[in-house]
Parts: sequence; C-alpha cells; structure tokens
Amino acid sequence: MKCARHPDIETELSCTRCETPICPKCLVVGAVGMLCKACAGGGNVLFEVAPARLLLAALLGIAAGTVAGVIIQHIGFFLFFISPAIGGAVGQAILWATKGRRGKKVEVLAGVSVVGGGLLSAYLTGDWHRYWHNPISAIWFIIGMVLCTDQFRANAHTLVDWMADYLRDVEQYPVKSSVKPGEILAELPASPPEQGEPFADIFADFQETIMPGITHWQHPLFCAYFPANSSPPSVLAEMLTATLGAQCMIWETSPAAAELEERCMEWLQELIGLPGEFVGVIQDTASTATLSALLSARERASGFTVNHTGLYDSPRYVVYASQEAHSSIDKAVRIAGLGTDNLRKISVDENYALKPEALIEAIKHDQAQGMVPLCIIASLGTTSSTAVDPLAEIGRIARDENLWLHVDAAYAGSALILPELREYLEEIETVDSFVFNPHKWLFTNFDCSAYFVQDKAALIRTFEILPEYLKTGHASEVNNYRDWGVPLGRRFRALKLWFVMRSYGVEGLRTRIRQHIAWAYLFRSWIESTLDFEVLAPSPFGLVCFRYTPIGTTEAERDELNAALKERINASGELYITHTKLGGRYTLRMVIGQTEVTLAHIKKAWEIIQSTAHSLC
Amino acid sequence: MKCARHPDIETELSCTRCETPICPKCLVVGAVGMLCKACAGGGNVLFEVAPARLLLAALLGIAAGTVAGVIIQHIGFFLFFISPAIGGAVGQAILWATKGRRGKKVEVLAGVSVVGGGLLSAYLTGDWHRYWHNPISAIWFIIGMVLCTDQFRANAHTLVDWMADYLRDVEQYPVKSSVKPGEILAELPASPPEQGEPFADIFADFQETIMPGITHWQHPLFCAYFPANSSPPSVLAEMLTATLGAQCMIWETSPAAAELEERCMEWLQELIGLPGEFVGVIQDTASTATLSALLSARERASGFTVNHTGLYDSPRYVVYASQEAHSSIDKAVRIAGLGTDNLRKISVDENYALKPEALIEAIKHDQAQGMVPLCIIASLGTTSSTAVDPLAEIGRIARDENLWLHVDAAYAGSALILPELREYLEEIETVDSFVFNPHKWLFTNFDCSAYFVQDKAALIRTFEILPEYLKTGHASEVNNYRDWGVPLGRRFRALKLWFVMRSYGVEGLRTRIRQHIAWAYLFRSWIESTLDFEVLAPSPFGLVCFRYTPIGTTEAERDELNAALKERINASGELYITHTKLGGRYTLRMVIGQTEVTLAHIKKAWEIIQSTAHSLC
Repeated sequence: MKCARHPDIETELSCTRCETPICPKCLVVGAVGMLCKACAGGGNVLFEVAPARLLLAALLGIAAGTVAGVIIQHIGFFLFFISPAIGGAVGQAILWATKGRRGKKVEVLAGVSVVGGGLLSAYLTGDWHRYWHNPISAIWFIIGMVLCTDQFRANAHTLVDWMADYLRDVEQYPVKSSVKPGEILAELPASPPEQGEPFADIFADFQETIMPGITHWQHPLFCAYFPANSSPPSVLAEMLTATLGAQCMIWETSPAAAELEERCMEWLQELIGLPGEFVGVIQDTASTATLSALLSARERASGFTVNHTGLYDSPRYVVYASQEAHSSIDKAVRIAGLGTDNLRKISVDENYALKPEALIEAIKHDQAQGMVPLCIIASLGTTSSTAVDPLAEIGRIARDENLWLHVDAAYAGSALILPELREYLEEIETVDSFVFNPHKWLFTNFDCSAYFVQDKAALIRTFEILPEYLKTGHASEVNNYRDWGVPLGRRFRALKLWFVMRSYGVEGLRTRIRQHIAWAYLFRSWIESTLDFEVLAPSPFGLVCFRYTPIGTTEAERDELNAALKERINASGELYITHTKLGGRYTLRMVIGQTEVTLAHIKKAWEIIQSTAHSLC
Repeated sequence: MKCARHPDIETELSCTRCETPICPKCLVVGAVGMLCKACAGGGNVLFEVAPARLLLAALLGIAAGTVAGVIIQHIGFFLFFISPAIGGAVGQAILWATKGRRGKKVEVLAGVSVVGGGLLSAYLTGDWHRYWHNPISAIWFIIGMVLCTDQFRANAHTLVDWMADYLRDVEQYPVKSSVKPGEILAELPASPPEQGEPFADIFADFQETIMPGITHWQHPLFCAYFPANSSPPSVLAEMLTATLGAQCMIWETSPAAAELEERCMEWLQELIGLPGEFVGVIQDTASTATLSALLSARERASGFTVNHTGLYDSPRYVVYASQEAHSSIDKAVRIAGLGTDNLRKISVDENYALKPEALIEAIKHDQAQGMVPLCIIASLGTTSSTAVDPLAEIGRIARDENLWLHVDAAYAGSALILPELREYLEEIETVDSFVFNPHKWLFTNFDCSAYFVQDKAALIRTFEILPEYLKTGHASEVNNYRDWGVPLGRRFRALKLWFVMRSYGVEGLRTRIRQHIAWAYLFRSWIESTLDFEVLAPSPFGLVCFRYTPIGTTEAERDELNAALKERINASGELYITHTKLGGRYTLRMVIGQTEVTLAHIKKAWEIIQSTAHSLC
C-alpha cells in the first residue's frame, strides 16, 4: 500500500483513527497510537465523538437530569415557564462536552442520561409518584433533546422569528442605508477566524454590523431603479431551495427541477399571453438572456458557423436598438465580439419610443454599405421611462428583412398578465425571443428571469456542448437546461415561481399589478394638478418620470435643484427614488411596484416629495 | 384630470376605494359607489379588509374566545397540550373571515375579541378568579395571535422543522431519483390556479410531487460529478439573503453586501494562498468566470478595441487549453466570437495533464501562421480526473509569450486551503486570473464562484458601461460589482461565505478537506488491493477514477460492464456515481467531498460497488 500524502512511498502503516495509509514522514504518535496528520491536528474527529468525551457528556447529562428532577418536584407548576431554559442549558452542557458534535450516539446518550438523572432524583427524594405524573418532565426532556442534538433547527427557528419580524417591520428601517464608503469594511476583521465561532456571535454581528449597511429593497417606499420585489411564498420556497442544495444543470441531476421549470414557464407564458410556439427557460438576469438572444441571432444568421470559425471572415453584422435601450445590450454586443460600433442606437420620438422610419433608414443605409443587419432589440418598457417601442411596426420590419427580433420587457413584461394590456403583443409571431423578469415585478426573489424563444433548436444549437462526463441516457426526451444559456450550473429557481403563482393565484397577481398601475396614474394626476412639478414622460406602467419646476427657474437650475431634491429625499430614509435624463433634463423616477405597497404609502411619498421640494426653495 | 386607463380622456370621476381617476368606460358601479375595474374585480382589497368582514371576524373571535374561556375552566392542566391547536383554530377562523388578509387592524381586532370572549366566559360562569389566574390563557392568546396575524412566521417555522428533519434524514432518501422522464410534469396542472391556494396545499404537493423527483445532492453518498455541497450555516445565511431580497448590483444599492463581498474575497484569497496583488469578486459559476477571463484577455490584447470594433479586423486570436479542459472553455470561446477552430486542445501526458512542450509547439506553429496567441487556460483539477496541469511551466510560457494565463481550479481550488498543497501555486505571479467554486467543495450553497484577477482595471474596462440611471456619487471610492462580470443584477452571495468561514473556522474547513482527501487515498488503496478493479488516474484530491476489470474480459466488454455497473449502482438509490472516458476507456468516478460524509460512508460505498460488480459477472 502507498502513503496517502506520498503516493511514491510504499508503507505498511495506517492511521489508527481514519485508517489512511501513512508513511513515517506523515506519522504522528498520539495517545491512542499512530495517527495521520489530519487526525492528529486539532478538531480532527468531526462526526465521531471520542469515547472520553461521550463519557463526560453522559456524566453531565445524568447530573443535569438529577438536578432538574429535583427542581421539577419543588418549583411546581411555574416550572413550565423556565423548563425550556433548563433544557437548553443541559443541551448546551452536553454539546460542550462533545465539542459541538452531534449525531445518533450523542442523541441517544443525551436522552438516556437525562431520563436516568430524573429517575435518580425520584429515587433520592422517594417521590416516585410525582415524578411519573409530571408531564413537564416530558416536554422539558424533548426541548433539551432538540437543542442538544440539532443546532441547525434551533438556529433556523431563531432566524425565522427575526425574518418574520423584519418583513413585518421593514418600514421601521431607513429605506436607503446611510453608511459611508468603507464603514462596514472597517468593522470586519482582516482575516477569517482560526476556530469556528458560535452561531449567536455571527448572527449578532449580522444584526449590528451588516444590517446598518443594508438598503431595504422590500421597503414599500423603495421606489428607486426598478423593484426587485419578493414575497412571503417566494422566501419560503428559497428556504427549501437552499436546503435541497440541488444543482439543476441537467435533467438527471434534478428531474423534478427540470420538469417544474418546464411547467412554470408554460404557466408564465399563458399568463402573459405568449403563443404556444414559444418555449421558456429561467435565466439569471435579462442581461444574460439578451446575450443569449444575440448569440442565437449570430449563429442562425451565419448558419451556426461563427461558433466554430469566429467572426473574422463574417460579414459585418449590425444590431439595432433605440437610444433609450438598456445598457445590457451594449454589454452583450461587446461580449459577442460584434463591437458597439456595429450597434445602431435608433432615435426616439417624443415619448422616448423607437422611430420605425429611422430604423428602416438605418437598415437600408447599412445594407447599402455592405453590412448585414442581424438583430433588432425592441424595448417593452425602457429603463429610463418605461417607453414602449412600436412592436407591431418593428415586427413587420424584422419579418421583411428577416432579422432576429428580441423583445426586452425586463420590467414591464409582468404587466402583460393583465388581459387589458395584451394589445402590446400585436404581431407577437414576428418576435424570436422575449425576456421579462419575474424578479422585478412578479413577487419572486432575484434571480429569476424568464426567457422565451420561438426557435428552441437555434438556442440549443448555440450553446450545446456534450462532453463525456455530462452524458446521460435521456438526452432526447427531456430538457437539459445547461444548453439553454451561459452558465452550466443552475439553482432550483422554478420552485419559487411555483410557490408565488400558486399562493397568489392569477387573480391575486393581477390585482396587485393593476393597483400599482392605477396608483402610478393617480400619482401622476397629483403632479399634473400642481404648478411647480411636471411630468416628463408617459407612464404606462408603475413608473412616473417627473421633476420639480418652481416658477422662474432656468433649465440649469432645475437640473441642480432636482439632483439636490433627490439627495435630500433619499437622505431622509423615508423614501428612496433615483434619477435619469430625459431629453437632456435631470428627471426623477418614482416606481410603484413593491409587494406590500398601499395607497397610503404613495400619499406619504407625495407628501415627502412636496415638503422636501418646498424646503429647498 | 385624465382617466387612468385612457390618458386621452378628461374625467371628473374617481374610484371610491382607491381614488384612481376613471372615465365612464372604466367605471363599475359597486355596492359602495363607483369603482375602477381593479377594485371592482374579485379579491381587490388586498391590504384593507372590508368592514363587513372585519365585523364577521370580530364576532368569530368573540365566540371562539368565549368557548375557549369555558374550555380553559374545565379541562384543567392538560389544556396546555391542546391550547396551541385551539389558538390555531381561532386564528384560522379569523383569517377565513378576512379572506386571509392580515395587518394592524386585524391584529388588534383578533386580540380584543379573543380577550373579550374570555372575559365573557368568565362572566357567564362567574368564575373570575380562575380565569385571571390561569396563565394558560395568556400563552394560548399569544399563539392564537401569532397564527392569526402572521402566516409567514407560522409557515416558516413549519418549513424549518421539515428542513432540519431533511438534513438529519437525507440518507433515508434514495440518493438518485428514479422517476421517469415526464412523470413529474404529468402531475403538474397545465395552468396556474385562478385563486390563491393555501400554503398547506402547496407544501403538501411539494412533498408528494416534487420530492420524489429530487436527486439528493446533500446525501453523503452523492459521489457523482463534483459535489455542490452546502452546510447548515450556509443554509441559514441563504434564509437571510432571501428575506432581505437585496439586489447588489452597485455599492449604493447594498453597501454592506459590497463591502462584505470585498472582505470575504480577501479572506478566501488568504485561505488559498493567493498573493495580495489579486482582487476577487463572486461570480455565479466558473463558466461565467472563464468567459470573463477570456474577454479581459481579448480586450487587453486588442488595446480594448474589440469591444468597439468587433473582431472583424482583428488578428486571429488563439486560445490554448488541454484536451481534458472543461467544456465551459469551448462555450466561452464560442460566446466571445473567437471560434472553437481557434481553440487548441493541447495533448496530455499519461496523467492527463497538459504537456508543456506540446503547448510551446502549438504556440510557435500558430505564430508562424500569422495568428496571435491570446490566452492559456490551465486546469488545476480537470473535471474527468482532477489532473493538474504543470502550472509553473505553463506560467513561464505565458510570461515569455505575454499571454493571459487563466487557471480553472473550479473544483480543486478549495483544497488549496491546505498549506501542504500550496506547492501548486508556484509561479502564481504569472497567473492573470484564477477561479474556484466554494459552491463545489467549501460547504457554501450554489451559486458562489470566486474569481480573482491581478489586473482589476482590465476586468472593469472590459465590462464597464455607465448609463445615467446607474450613476451614483461614490463611483471612485467603492466597488460596483456590476462592472466585474456579465449580469447586471447580483444576489447577496457574500453572506453565506461569511457564515461558513466563521462557523467552521479555518481549522474546521481544513480538517474536512484533509479528511476527504485522506479517504480518497484510502478508497484508492482498497481498489489497488483487489485483482478485479483498477485505478485509472492519479487522485490528488477527492476523486478516484477506476473501473471493474474482471480477469478475461476484453476492453470492449469492460466498457459495457462498467456502464452497466454504474447504472445498477445508481438504480439502487444507495450511492450515486458518474462516468467519464480516460484514454478511451469507460471510467467510473467516485468523488468524496460531501459536508457530512464519514469514513463509514466510504466503506459502505466500496461494499456496494464490489457486491454490485460481482452480481454482474
């Protein structure tokens, strides 16, 4: 046999504890024989508790059981209220004896010693009757056992109470953290601890050090960016996802995850009114989905050759999107090797929507230059102002020119669950791919981006690579989602979508989205009814773009004033809004879309905005 | 004022309930006045409970309180054991009355009615003394309140008990699910429910429908692929991450998350012995990190021009990796537009490690053809056999030729926390980027990939795009991690790393990894001591590559036999292993790296493998 650490050395020795073959260079002589370095080092026996420590634990258990038995007989009824604490203390004593290790042996030993101690106390006091008839000893025993043998359970229950308090009281926190750069970092030690620390210390640090630096995305008055709203059922599902710890790269590694994803994507597809020709997959973010769309377009256009030859001998592909389209398109064009010089930012109309005639002109111009139009990315709800590009017209252009049409509906796609908004999906059959984020506005924890394509084969052919170590017997019958996007590994993300759609039901989801949109209209009407604020863009969904325009201020002053207004509002901790620029003007963005937002919150936000503005000038 | 749904219609009407301006087309006449369609639809009042329902809830509360008060006075002491059930029933009754809606009003009402009912019962029975002195009523009341007003808390506690049971009993489940393709899908309804469903139903379906289709990645005898091991502290942190629901794209949106990530990356860097010149960032998977490395290489080599011009006029870049390198490299080369024709798969030696002389030869050959060598991707632990490419020699080649050197240590990087394995980091200063996955072998839930680069500026310049809506005041002082990778949005992933490193401590982490490696050596020695099995590759970490080779079988028979052996072992549900091909031979892979794996498990696995093999021939 060869030494475990030195495979070239023949040896006859092995570690007394773990049986690893060891050579004399690796050998450590311990109290119980020859040990390998791993077993000789501190904290080596992780799961099997050393006999001496088991004995110590048993003695402690008996002692504690005896004492507790006596107490039970003397305190009387009110013992009940302190028995969990006593049980916990005994559990901790036993854990101390076993160096925090638990398992079947420790469990049985704890039970036997505690009961034995109780019997001993009854024998000592002679009061058998009372002992056997006191049900408290049973409860006490169970609590002691649970605490003793299952720290995870106890800690997780502690966390649940904190979590429920947090979700109930989230409005008590300042919505935007006011820590200064580097403040949190300075409180964190430079090196990890050598020895493990108890959960209580870590959780205390979480509350004291980390929480002050958290910006509360689930606060009803988080009206910045776009929401990343979650919901109780989604959080519950995330707890299960974390516990299962399943890696869902292929069907075989988690069949239920693959099939639940397939079904949940069908549900979402039905909900937003996409025709049955589409198939869906969960991706992490819309950025990645847009990159996937661009790559599929590149491969389909090149007959799937660029994957192999690279872009060197390709025609020059051109990608089209509006001036208001999301920065992830620039990023995707860069990553795909197409170059942002070949990305045309088409001009927009007064509503910040792409001008179809400018698109046609750009396509014709590029064709005349010998370039090859590849893909149009239309926005259904831009990030700055939720402008909606004219999808039907763009669709006809894409069809006429045979271009890949990708629709980026990252935020606004969730609103399509309202039947009254389906008009946006006119000419949907011209769309090749469509992405929206349930993690933005459909009460599902980040990350969860729903990506739909018509040409599933083109998507898979773009990404598919099948090395030997990933081959399984079911390739043709099932969806192996690793071939549907960039990363190989995947979390079990369908579970939270399933919990959310089932918990709220279609009606519950629709009602929330409808109210958010109605309240945005209402907020807009309040602005329109004042003289010193103005609305700067249409607000078809939950975002209102506006600015403060007190009479007699110049454009430059207004930009400064609104930047100051935003800063002061956000510093208050009561409301968090962000800004953009529309037509060169500094524009405030108020987004209504939190899971627990109510009309009262919107009224409060409007009061904060008005009073803060008036305090400025 | 304009109608909310029809912005071109002037109106004076608004919804009685939500105050949204409505035009006559949108108006619905309800019992309490004119309503908008949202409020008139079913389930419209989400947060404010209708007065009639509040009254119903109050009546129910009083009735239940009275009944319970009487029960309290008659059952006596043992009431304690059934009081939570009574409290729960009252809570459920009140929730039924409010249609599941909760909030301050319902909370106060529940409390007042229940106490009122109790007083009423005391008045009716005349037994005031007993009522006031029975502490059980207090406990009962609290439980009733909690259940009534906080379904999330109750449901989450239910889940925690399930989670703790699951983690304790995971070995009772068959490690690999045996469902057939489509079986789970067939049990899932084709459409989402119209009305929300109670948590109990959803959770029951999870247990009955989803669980049978789960392959248990946390089972100690999940020895397939590489582990995606997690741990109790990591699951606890994931619970908090899900609850906060923070989106960590830039510093300002979650300062604590950004700074904790910075510090945790420093801790990891110190743990694995990377020099201080490196800086780290968490990415989702090694696939994405490798793509990032390739893009940084492409941009640095081209003077950051390909991002703008595309690859059309570039020199032909060539990427080098071994024949055994991971499929994510092929994927990254495709995505980046470089083309797999320009990826050289360098031949390997008898240990499946890249041959440096073949690498030099390939580079010289490509240079002679006018191509431009761009990047070498070295594997520290290949996926098939955990082969280690000769990093020091490759590093010298990369330095001499001025190539970007990326090290893919996805699985084996975690082993570098052992000081005795630092020899692998010789010439580390020649490495430009390094990735390993704490989500594989460092007890941290998927996804959590640690990506380190020396040239932070090159990484950021590759990805940075700054639209107006993402501008904040702190850009130069802080890390805005959105510019450090592909997706814009990011989860708060540093928290679980922090919980894990602190809970285990450096010693605890090292001991586990040491034991896994020692047990792999031991498993290997068992194979070597038999005549009918053979080891097929070195096993420097936790993976042993082997096959069954009964005397007298041909190579073709052995391939078939081992495929059958794998199938039969996996079908048993007791052990899950996967395969690869090494030197054309069908090879079984046994990976030892689960958080809770013990030597007893490894012994059992070896017995299963032997007895299953002997049952085959």
